[in-house]
Amino acid sequence: MRGKITEEMQAHLDNLTKPKGSLGNLEEYALKLASIQSRVPPKVDKKISIIFAGDHGIADEGVSLYPKEVTAQMVANFLSGGAAINVLSKHCGSDVWAVDAGVAGEIGSDGVIDMKIGPGTRNFAREEAMSDEELERCIESGKALAARVAEEGYDLVSIGDMGIGNTTTAAALLVANGLALEDVVDRGTGIDEDTLRHKLDIVAAAVDKHGPFSDVRASMRCLGGFEICMITGFILGLKGRKIACVIDGFPVTTGAFLAWSLDKEVSEFLFAGHKSKVKGHGVTLEKMGLEPIVDLNMRLGEGTGAVIGGFLVSLGAKIASEMASFASAGVSRSEGDEENY
Amino acid sequence: MRGKITEEMQAHLDNLTKPKGSLGNLEEYALKLASIQSRVPPKVDKKISIIFAGDHGIADEGVSLYPKEVTAQMVANFLSGGAAINVLSKHCGSDVWAVDAGVAGEIGSDGVIDMKIGPGTRNFAREEAMSDEELERCIESGKALAARVAEEGYDLVSIGDMGIGNTTTAAALLVANGLALEDVVDRGTGIDEDTLRHKLDIVAAAVDKHGPFSDVRASMRCLGGFEICMITGFILGLKGRKIACVIDGFPVTTGAFLAWSLDKEVSEFLFAGHKSKVKGHGVTLEKMGLEPIVDLNMRLGEGTGAVIGGFLVSLGAKIASEMASFASAGVSRSEGDEENY
Repeated sequence: MRGKITEEMQAHLDNLTKPKGSLGNLEEYALKLASIQSRVPPKVDKKISIIFAGDHGIADEGVSLYPKEVTAQMVANFLSGGAAINVLSKHCGSDVWAVDAGVAGEIGSDGVIDMKIGPGTRNFAREEAMSDEELERCIESGKALAARVAEEGYDLVSIGDMGIGNTTTAAALLVANGLALEDVVDRGTGIDEDTLRHKLDIVAAAVDKHGPFSDVRASMRCLGGFEICMITGFILGLKGRKIACVIDGFPVTTGAFLAWSLDKEVSEFLFAGHKSKVKGHGVTLEKMGLEPIVDLNMRLGEGTGAVIGGFLVSLGAKIASEMASFASAGVSRSEGDEENY
Repeated sequence: MRGKITEEMQAHLDNLTKPKGSLGNLEEYALKLASIQSRVPPKVDKKISIIFAGDHGIADEGVSLYPKEVTAQMVANFLSGGAAINVLSKHCGSDVWAVDAGVAGEIGSDGVIDMKIGPGTRNFAREEAMSDEELERCIESGKALAARVAEEGYDLVSIGDMGIGNTTTAAALLVANGLALEDVVDRGTGIDEDTLRHKLDIVAAAVDKHGPFSDVRASMRCLGGFEICMITGFILGLKGRKIACVIDGFPVTTGAFLAWSLDKEVSEFLFAGHKSKVKGHGVTLEKMGLEPIVDLNMRLGEGTGAVIGGFLVSLGAKIASEMASFASAGVSRSEGDEENY
């Protein structure tokens, strides 16, 4: 079935007024979307950026330069439209939803999607980040949100994250699931040698303390975080509904990696929006066989890389559905058809 | 003056609700735009894609798989909105102008900007591609068009090209101006070893026949093409009016390289929209010190890479003008301010 759609899509692309394959990756995006949607040409009419926010007990160990209250403050900023993700989404034609997956403080604004599992995870340096029941709620809430996305007719979803301390949680999750410590703990640009050492120690000690893990879910329960695990459930839900999904930087990609660890077909529904400057992002994408769409030296999160990558994916769909064919435009073809004009 | 604007722009960016520098290249685009426009924050409200079309006598030597009439047919396609550049420009928010700089046939549609210098250049394998007077008209027409762009209030211009045979002309121009033959003659994906050999021979013989060139203009007169030389004049004109400009693939970049050869400050007004798959493009960008914005394995021309790169440049301006500051959003700052949240 998939093979037939891809062939049909390729024939469609080769009929458009351009040398064969000359739109490069845009044509690849169209092919992947056609395969995801089982539709020739594919359709991207309604896009959305969804930011999952949550707090992390591990932030108490001094792994970030920002205070924890920034998580709630930034969610309020998303809701009032002043954050980078709002500006980029507006110009890339994406709506924006902000999800409270487990922020510690109160969000002092209306409009958040309230799926709060709890007021931040527990500190995994001392105890398990969440209970079995909380993990189950994360995953089920993510799947419920995917259903809502489908109901509202979105055909491309960019995923972002917000959570002080979440790169530490993400690194621990990846180490717990087989990646190398030194590959996934980032120094950022702000932390010095001592803080980096501290962050490495915390991640190594936590994996030691809670592991070995009986399965992927056990690592999620022990390490968190609410927003990362909800992203995992959300991506599994999108796959079930055949909706294409664009992932962002390190924490979101970790959530996707967990989904992929549970179901390897997930990568067929994923686009990697960008290559983040955060260490560990590239190697995690590689594990899933994903190539980043752009490399803009960004490291902000919020889905800012995903919404830009998603915009380029949508251009692939637009090319496929809106360009003239050689016949309709009355343009002569070459025999080889693969040279530049 | 430029130094002061850049400092002011940097301070503005560092006040927005994001860790310092975390928007990477988007912040660089904002800085460059501010410097071009002498304005903090810079403004990109009105974008345009302009495609310069022309025919090349050298096409008679069998260097392309496409027949010459495709140039006029594709211009008609631009005017009726069915080409890749139309679809991409529409979704990237750019208007589109098509310029007849010297197409051989009649464009059977209304709406073209008629700056036709002649019905294609003469075959530079046999004689000089154009006269001194024709070259002067190319450059002056390009400058006149820059004036029109300024009058209509465009603040970002993407440049594209259309012309069967123009990669051969572009390669000859670059060799005439010091680049290595083997670095700039592309095999494309359609031409075989024999045709490649033929293309290399033609370029080498032409530079031999017409050279040594007394100056850049002499090489332009001898080799052409009308659209490439008009692009050179256009870019010089945009620089004079402090309008930022995004260049596309190999032929456009060659036109920009000629402008830069005449005035080295030109590169301060240029963005390289993408890295084309056509050989010779990368090395020419490097000479001018330009880094391509995206690399999507494209090789279509028409300005398709430029309009995408230009869209990302415009996002840099939007970030700078539309994001909330830490103070206005009530978000706490870190001391270091350079770590991820």
